[in-house]
Amino acid sequence: MPDALRGTGVSPGVAAGPIRSVSGTVPEPPAGERHAGDAAAERARALAALDAVGADLEERGARAGGEAQEVLGAQAMMARDPGLADLVTGKIDDGVSAPRAVHEAFGVFRATLAAAGEYMAARVADLDDIRDRAVAVLLGVPAPGVPDSEEPFVLVARDLAPADTALLDPAKVLAFVTRDGGPTSHTAILARAMGVPAVVACSGCLDLPDGTVVLVDGASGEVHPDPASEEIAAARAAAEARAAVLDTATGPGATADGHRIPLLANIGGPKDIEAALARGAEGVGLFRTEFLFLGRTTAPSEEEQEAAYRAVLEAFPHVVVRTLDAGADKPLAFLPPPGDEPNPALGERGLRLFQNHPGVLEGQLRALARAADGLDVELSVMAPMVADAAETRTFVRACRAAGLPRAGIMIEIPAAALRAADLAAEADFFSLGTNDLAQYTFAADRQIGALARFQDPWQPALLDLVVLAAGAAERAGRPCGVCGEAAGDPALACVLVGLGVTSLSMSSPSLPHVRAALAAHTLDQCRRAAYAARQATDATGAHAAALAELPSL
Amino acid sequence: MPDALRGTGVSPGVAAGPIRSVSGTVPEPPAGERHAGDAAAERARALAALDAVGADLEERGARAGGEAQEVLGAQAMMARDPGLADLVTGKIDDGVSAPRAVHEAFGVFRATLAAAGEYMAARVADLDDIRDRAVAVLLGVPAPGVPDSEEPFVLVARDLAPADTALLDPAKVLAFVTRDGGPTSHTAILARAMGVPAVVACSGCLDLPDGTVVLVDGASGEVHPDPASEEIAAARAAAEARAAVLDTATGPGATADGHRIPLLANIGGPKDIEAALARGAEGVGLFRTEFLFLGRTTAPSEEEQEAAYRAVLEAFPHVVVRTLDAGADKPLAFLPPPGDEPNPALGERGLRLFQNHPGVLEGQLRALARAADGLDVELSVMAPMVADAAETRTFVRACRAAGLPRAGIMIEIPAAALRAADLAAEADFFSLGTNDLAQYTFAADRQIGALARFQDPWQPALLDLVVLAAGAAERAGRPCGVCGEAAGDPALACVLVGLGVTSLSMSSPSLPHVRAALAAHTLDQCRRAAYAARQATDATGAHAAALAELPSL
Repeated sequence: MPDALRGTGVSPGVAAGPIRSVSGTVPEPPAGERHAGDAAAERARALAALDAVGADLEERGARAGGEAQEVLGAQAMMARDPGLADLVTGKIDDGVSAPRAVHEAFGVFRATLAAAGEYMAARVADLDDIRDRAVAVLLGVPAPGVPDSEEPFVLVARDLAPADTALLDPAKVLAFVTRDGGPTSHTAILARAMGVPAVVACSGCLDLPDGTVVLVDGASGEVHPDPASEEIAAARAAAEARAAVLDTATGPGATADGHRIPLLANIGGPKDIEAALARGAEGVGLFRTEFLFLGRTTAPSEEEQEAAYRAVLEAFPHVVVRTLDAGADKPLAFLPPPGDEPNPALGERGLRLFQNHPGVLEGQLRALARAADGLDVELSVMAPMVADAAETRTFVRACRAAGLPRAGIMIEIPAAALRAADLAAEADFFSLGTNDLAQYTFAADRQIGALARFQDPWQPALLDLVVLAAGAAERAGRPCGVCGEAAGDPALACVLVGLGVTSLSMSSPSLPHVRAALAAHTLDQCRRAAYAARQATDATGAHAAALAELPSL
Repeated sequence: MPDALRGTGVSPGVAAGPIRSVSGTVPEPPAGERHAGDAAAERARALAALDAVGADLEERGARAGGEAQEVLGAQAMMARDPGLADLVTGKIDDGVSAPRAVHEAFGVFRATLAAAGEYMAARVADLDDIRDRAVAVLLGVPAPGVPDSEEPFVLVARDLAPADTALLDPAKVLAFVTRDGGPTSHTAILARAMGVPAVVACSGCLDLPDGTVVLVDGASGEVHPDPASEEIAAARAAAEARAAVLDTATGPGATADGHRIPLLANIGGPKDIEAALARGAEGVGLFRTEFLFLGRTTAPSEEEQEAAYRAVLEAFPHVVVRTLDAGADKPLAFLPPPGDEPNPALGERGLRLFQNHPGVLEGQLRALARAADGLDVELSVMAPMVADAAETRTFVRACRAAGLPRAGIMIEIPAAALRAADLAAEADFFSLGTNDLAQYTFAADRQIGALARFQDPWQPALLDLVVLAAGAAERAGRPCGVCGEAAGDPALACVLVGLGVTSLSMSSPSLPHVRAALAAHTLDQCRRAAYAARQATDATGAHAAALAELPSL
C-alpha cells in the first residue's frame, strides 16, 4: 500500500472512493510568444475566446441558480470587461500572441481590480480561473473544471474556485482534497456546509492518477491511496459509530454536568434556516446580512430588508444579526471604500465604513426593529470590526435610537479583546470572531497559504484573547459567544467553554459533533483542557494538551 | 485675528513665518476628453512629457545626492516605464487625449505596481506625483513642487512626497503644515529628522494665501494666522527657554531619582552617525539595514555589508542591528514576496521572507559577526515581524551559529506581546516597534488618513501590550526597549518607563527632549503617569491623564 498523504483536516468525517481531479492546469503561454503577423485575425480570436468564456460562465450560473448565479454572472462580466479587451488587443497590436496577450492582460487587470475595489478583490483565484478558461479555449485544451462522473467520487484539486463548485452534485461528492488552501478557504467552508470530509494543504495529492481509490479522514488530515477493503470497512464502521453517537446527542447544548451552552447556527440568509433547524440549532448566533447588499448598485429598501429578516426571526427564538460587513474583500457598488487601500483587510471595512454613510446603517437597524415587531423572538444586533469604546458607544446609541434593546459587538480586533472591560461597559454582549481575530493577532493574511499555521485557532495567543474578552464580559454580567470557525471544532469548543465562553455558533453541520463533545465532558474537564492548552507554546501543543484532558475525543 | 487652525502636532517646537504652498493641484483631465484626430502627434506629445518628467526627476536627484537620489531615480524609472508608455499610447490610439490617457494609465499602472511588488507599492503618493508632473507638462501648468524662496518660510501642502522634500534647504524651512498625513507620514518623520515643528491633518491650511504669516505650534497642533508680534515674540521666547532647558540636560538618560534609561538613536545607515552623536545618543537602539539592499538585483556581498556595519559599530559602545526587513512596502528585487499579496502588511514580510531564502539571513549574520570582530562594542541583533516562540527559536539559533551572542526580537505583532513570556524564554532581549504594533492591534493601516486615530501611540490597548511585553521580559531578566516613534514623545517616553521599558530609541532630534523630560520626573511619577494613562478609555484621555502626573510637561 502506498504511503498515506498528510494534509490539514478541515471538515471531519471519513469517506472512501475513486478520485476525480479538476482537470489539469492550463499551461502558461511562453513569455515573448508572438503571433504570425495578422493582428486583426489574432484580435478577433482573442475576443471570441473571452466572449465564449463569458457565455459559458453565464450558462453555468443559470443552471446553478441562487447565489452561485450571482457569483458566476459577475465572473462573466469580468471576462467581457472592455478594459480587459483593450489591454489584450493593444498587446496583440504589439505582436504578442493571443494566448500570451490574454495571460499578460489578466495580470494587469487583476491588479487593477484589486485596487479599484470593484469586486471581491481578494478572490484572485476567481480571476485566475477566468484567465485559464480563456487561455484553454485559445490553446484548444480542456477547460479547467470538475469532470462529469456517474459514480460518487473524491474531488481533488489545486484549490477550488466558486465556478468549480457551483454545479457540484452534493450526492456525488464523497470528500474534498486540495493541495492549497487553509482552514478558512472556500473549499473548507463549502465542505463543512455540505457536511462532507475535506483535507486541504495536502501536497502530493495532484500526483495521484484519476480513479485511484483513496480513504480520506477529514479529522486527522490523512489521505490513504489504495486502502485495503477492510480498512475502508473499518473507517466506514467508525464513521457510522460516530454518527450513531451523534444521533443520541440531541436537545439543548450542555456539558455532562449540565452547564448550559446554547448551540447556535451561523447563517447567510433565509435559505440556511432549514439546515440549521434540522441539526437542532437553538437559535442563530451569526446572521450575516451581506446577501441582501451584494451585487446591488443601491441599498435594498427597508421593506425588502424587513421581509428577509422576518423570515429568519420567525424561525428561531434567538437571533443575533450582524449588521452589514462591507469593505475589504466584500466591497459594495453603492458603498465603496474611500480611495485605494494598500491593505484592504486593515482598511475602512465593517462598522468603519458607516462613518461616511450613517444612513445605510440606520436603515438596516430600522428594518430589523420592524422585522421583529410582534414576533416572539429575542433579537440581538451586533457590529463587525469594532476597535474601541467610542465605536461601541456610537453603535449602541444607533441601535437604541432604532428601538433595538440588545446591541453588541464582534470581538475580532485585538484591541477590542485587550480593552474588553471598557467595551463591556458600553455593549450588551460580545461575539468573538476567531478568524479575523487570528489574522490580526498574528499579522497573517487568512488568504496566504504559507502563513496558514497562524490561522490555526488553537494558537495560545488567540486563546489568551478569548480569556481576556470572556473574563471581562463575565465581570460585567454580559454574555460572550464565539461565532468563528473555531466554535465548530468539537475539542476546541470544549476548550472555549472552559475559557468562559457562554454560547457557540457554527456552520449547521458541526452542531451535532459539538453537542456530542460537550455532552461527554464536564465543565471542570473543559476548564482543565483550557488551562492545559494555554500552557503550550504553539497550536499543535495546545491541541494535544487539550485532548489529553478530554477523554472522549 | 483670524481663528487658529487645529491639526495634529507631530514634531514639537514653535515657529513663525510666511507660508509658501506646494504649488496648486494639477487638475484631473476630464473623463472622455478626446484628441483632435492626429494620434501620432498626440502619442509623441505624451511620450515627450513622460520623458521630460523622468529627466527632471533625475536631475533633481543628482542635485540632492544620497538617499534622495535613489528615491528620485526610481521615480524617474517609473516615469519612463515602457509598460506605462504602452498603456498611454494604446489609449491615445483609441482617441483619448494625451493628458487623460496619462491620467488613466497611471491608475492602471499604480495598481499593477502595487500588486507586482516591484517598488514601494504602498507609496502611492510618489506615483500620483509623477502623474501630476506629466499632466502639468501636457497642460502647460506649473508642476507641483516647492517654490523657490529667498526668506525662510512655513511649508504648506496637501501632503509631501519625497520629490517635494529632497531639495528642501533645511535652513529655509521653519515648519511644516499639511492637510493630510498622520503621525507616521513622510512629513512627520522628515520634520522630526530635521528638528523643525510640524502639524499634520490640519484642515483649512490650504485656504491660507501664500505669504500669510502663521505661528505654528508643533506640540499643540495649533496654527495661528496673522499672529500679533508680541505673540510671535512670546512663542519664540518660550521656544528658546525650552531650548535652554534642553541644553542643560546632558549625559546618560535617567529619571530625576537616578533610574537609568539608556537613550539610543534610530539610524538608517552610517550617514546618520554624526547627528546621533551630536545629540548625545548613548548607542544605537535600531540600526535599519535596508539601505544596503534596496534597489539591488542581487544581495550585497558580505564584504560590502561588513564595511557598512563596521562604520556604525566603531562609533558607538552599544548597537542593536535589525536584520533585513523586506516585503510589504519594501520589496527587494532579489527577494520578492512569493506571489500576489492582497494585504502586503499581513503577508510574507520581515523574518517570514527568509523561510525560503535562509542564505540571505545567514550571510547578513556572518557579515555582522565579522564587522564586530576586534571592536569594543556590544553588538545585539534582532529580527523584525516575529510572531511566536518557534520563529524566535529559529532566529536565535541562526545568530548563535553565526557567532553572535546577543539575539533578540522586535515585538510588533500582538501575538508576540501576548505570549512574551514564551518568547522571553528564547530571546536575549525585546524591542517594541510601536508603529506596526498599533497597526495590527487596531487592524488599521498606517497609511490611511481616516484611520489615523488608531495609529496614536497613546491608545490604552497599545499601553496594555507594552506592559505585557515589558513585564514578561523583567520576569525573565531580559531588557525590553522601545524603538518606535512613541519613544520620541517626551511625555509618552516617561509613561513607557513607568510601564517597565528599559531603554528608549528614537530619531536623534528627539533625544534632548526626552532626556530633559526624564530628568524632570522620578520613576514613581512615571509609574503614576503610566497607571493613570491605562485607566483611560481612549488616547486623548490617556495623554491628558499622564500629563496631569508629569508636572514639568
